[in-house]
Amino acid sequence: VIRPTTIVVAPRLTKRLGLNVVIASETFQITGSFKFRAAYNVASRVRENLIITASSGNFGQALACACSMLKKSSIVVMPKTSAKVKVDAVREFGGQVEFVDVGVKSRAERVRELGIEHPDAYVASAYDDPLVIEGNASLGRELAALDYPFSDVVVPVGGGGLSAGIIKGICRSGRRIAVVGAEPLLGNDAARSFEAGKIICNESEPQTIADGARTVSLGEHNWAVLKDGLDGIVEVPEEKIIEGVRLLFELANLKAEPTGALSIGALLTEPERFEGRSVCCVVSGGNVDATVFTNILSA
Amino acid sequence: VIRPTTIVVAPRLTKRLGLNVVIASETFQITGSFKFRAAYNVASRVRENLIITASSGNFGQALACACSMLKKSSIVVMPKTSAKVKVDAVREFGGQVEFVDVGVKSRAERVRELGIEHPDAYVASAYDDPLVIEGNASLGRELAALDYPFSDVVVPVGGGGLSAGIIKGICRSGRRIAVVGAEPLLGNDAARSFEAGKIICNESEPQTIADGARTVSLGEHNWAVLKDGLDGIVEVPEEKIIEGVRLLFELANLKAEPTGALSIGALLTEPERFEGRSVCCVVSGGNVDATVFTNILSA
Repeated sequence: VIRPTTIVVAPRLTKRLGLNVVIASETFQITGSFKFRAAYNVASRVRENLIITASSGNFGQALACACSMLKKSSIVVMPKTSAKVKVDAVREFGGQVEFVDVGVKSRAERVRELGIEHPDAYVASAYDDPLVIEGNASLGRELAALDYPFSDVVVPVGGGGLSAGIIKGICRSGRRIAVVGAEPLLGNDAARSFEAGKIICNESEPQTIADGARTVSLGEHNWAVLKDGLDGIVEVPEEKIIEGVRLLFELANLKAEPTGALSIGALLTEPERFEGRSVCCVVSGGNVDATVFTNILSA
Repeated sequence: VIRPTTIVVAPRLTKRLGLNVVIASETFQITGSFKFRAAYNVASRVRENLIITASSGNFGQALACACSMLKKSSIVVMPKTSAKVKVDAVREFGGQVEFVDVGVKSRAERVRELGIEHPDAYVASAYDDPLVIEGNASLGRELAALDYPFSDVVVPVGGGGLSAGIIKGICRSGRRIAVVGAEPLLGNDAARSFEAGKIICNESEPQTIADGARTVSLGEHNWAVLKDGLDGIVEVPEEKIIEGVRLLFELANLKAEPTGALSIGALLTEPERFEGRSVCCVVSGGNVDATVFTNILSA
């Protein structure tokens, strides 16, 4: 069911970065981001026929699509202010959208309420669930099986579900590839967690342009994998995220969402770290509004 | 050397079009378009070490790149007014750019002059050469070998090199798949050629947004294949080309150049023709300036 990741070799991007880079793009995954790997694993592995989650982004449409493929139902809690394109996407994939006025009630609270209303439902976390890690591990397995001799995989980090999954997948393959996280400097809780040796939270959702990484903290299940499995974290300033989106567009013909471009942003931020190495940059998704995208290209 | 085409399955696009569609994208081919298939075949098959061509577009950079990979040299004749990004791309791939003031002298004339200056050089046509058809046939072979049961392949048509190659490649595989051309209505010489049963020329380069299809006529070698091998031609109005680019961006996460989106434009123009069939749309390339692209998205 899962579509294999798309390997993009971009000599002009390689030349511009001055580094040996190959891209693993999840932009053509079902529903346009890696989230489908996790969502499908959750939806197919739990016994419940109704799954509830809170997501204004990629996990919502991924779960809606996975449920519809498995003849299950889904309820996706979204802020009343969500962009129409995102609401439409969830509905197009057959999900039921439940709006919440986040000024009055948090999304998590609304999910809890719905869980009580529907005692027969499974409440799914978008990034803190062993089934999520397991689903994302499929990408790690794919990367490890590729016939490219890369030494490092650079992965966007929000809640840490993707990086944890990739570490697990690579680990099981027996190949030794370093996994480096790329998180927005504006929401650098993962970097601070590593320094502290325990999960540190952002005070509020960081307002980074990388909207898939607007998480308050790493998930606990993910942290258990990341704390020893991650080789390091690069904190990417906003302008490097934007430059990453632009370079992927201009030199690799790739439409990436800002969160997806964090990995290229990491190479722009700390090029010396990757010198002489062979790097695989994971572009985690491509779902970005035309307006946001044209603003980035015109900036 | 050739990168396999990228198959993109886009359920939302399929749903919007109301047709069963899969995309074969050449946007991640080396140098960002199918032209590399032809250019590499030419550069590797001729004995000459210097190759001269006229191209302000994708063939120029494809040839420059192929020559540089094969340790050969290339001269690409471009109008003085060419966009800087296109000139830069040719040079980045190691090509020597020769400017011509097209108000004073045509590109073809300048190529002839250079051919006399360099009697040891091969003068390559971007779309009318058996080696070009042969190079593009590799895409036909790939499509025929895919495990998708499509009945039709829709292909952008400019000079006809790509469609002729695909027909040859499919033909040799023994599979019966109809090949339908998609050309801009503004430069509908191919459609008129089919009606007349012989090559009909446009009076001048048609000023369509699909700049890869601004050809005056089909190539003669291509016509010999197309006249019996092509199943039909759809004439695509400019607004449907633009809508094609936009739909590919929004519903398939694909950055396509306008010429590449002609195939989706054909489905938008004559949906009834493809009803109940299973269609593979070839997106021939993705090299489009950020300004042109943002204008299309904002339109």
